[in-house]
Amino acid sequence: MERVPVLKIGDILLVSIQIDMEDQVALQLQEDLADRIVATGCHGVIIDISALDIVDSFVGRTLATIASISRVLDAETVVVGMRPAVAITLVELGLSLPGIRTALNVELGMDLLARNRAEEYDDRDDEDEDEAETPAVNAS
Amino acid sequence: MERVPVLKIGDILLVSIQIDMEDQVALQLQEDLADRIVATGCHGVIIDISALDIVDSFVGRTLATIASISRVLDAETVVVGMRPAVAITLVELGLSLPGIRTALNVELGMDLLARNRAEEYDDRDDEDEDEAETPAVNAS
Repeated sequence: MERVPVLKIGDILLVSIQIDMEDQVALQLQEDLADRIVATGCHGVIIDISALDIVDSFVGRTLATIASISRVLDAETVVVGMRPAVAITLVELGLSLPGIRTALNVELGMDLLARNRAEEYDDRDDEDEDEAETPAVNAS
Repeated sequence: MERVPVLKIGDILLVSIQIDMEDQVALQLQEDLADRIVATGCHGVIIDISALDIVDSFVGRTLATIASISRVLDAETVVVGMRPAVAITLVELGLSLPGIRTALNVELGMDLLARNRAEEYDDRDDEDEDEAETPAVNAS
C-alpha cells in the first residue's frame, strides 16, 4: 500500500501529499501523523499540497480531520502550497476549509508556526507570575 | 502529468519522492530542480526516498544525474530515508550509488549539508591564512 511519508524537521513534521488520497491512504496518514506527534513531541504540522491538481470534499475533510487530531495533541497544522486554481475550485464548491490555517509555501508556514508558538509562550509567561524560587543555601 | 514538488526550506531544497519514477517524471524533476537551484541560490538538495519500496537501476541513475546536475550548479545532494531492505537490494544488484551522499533522515541530511558548507568556508579561510601565517618558532 502506498504511504505518505512524515518528515521531521526540527520542531515540525512535514507531509508532502503527492498521491491520490484514497480512504486507506488518508487513514494511514492520520495514524502515522498522530504517532509521530506523540513520539517526537513536535508542535507543528505542515501539509504541502502543491502537487495536488484537485482538492475535493474528501481531501478537504481529511485535512480538517488531521488538523483536529493534531490540535488535541497540542500541535498546530498549516496547509501550504495550494495552487490558485485549487483555491478557486474549492470556494466554487462551497468548501472554504474552516478551521484550517494556510500559508503560501513551506517557509511561510514555518514562520507562522514559530510566531504562534512564541505568542503562546508569551501568554503563558504572563500567567506564570508566581515562580517558586529555590531558597539560598548558606555555606558553612 | 504527475510532478514531484520541490520545497524550499532555508538554504535547502527538499524533494520527497513518492510516485513511480517514470522517464518523464524523472526528466521533469531534474529540470525543476536545476531551475530552482538557479532561482533560489540554494547550496543543498535533500532527496527523501523513504516512501520507495524499490530503488532500481533507473532510479539509481536518476539520483546520480540529479547529484551531478546539482554539483555543477554548486549545490550538494544528500539522499535520505533509505529503507534497510532497499539498501540490501541495491547492493545485491551491484548498485552502490557511487557519488551519492546519504544520511538516515532529513535532519541528519541537513546537519551533513551544514557541516560540509562550514568546512568549505573554513578551507577557504585557511587558504587565505596560509599565505600570511608565520612559521612555528622552536622554544629551546
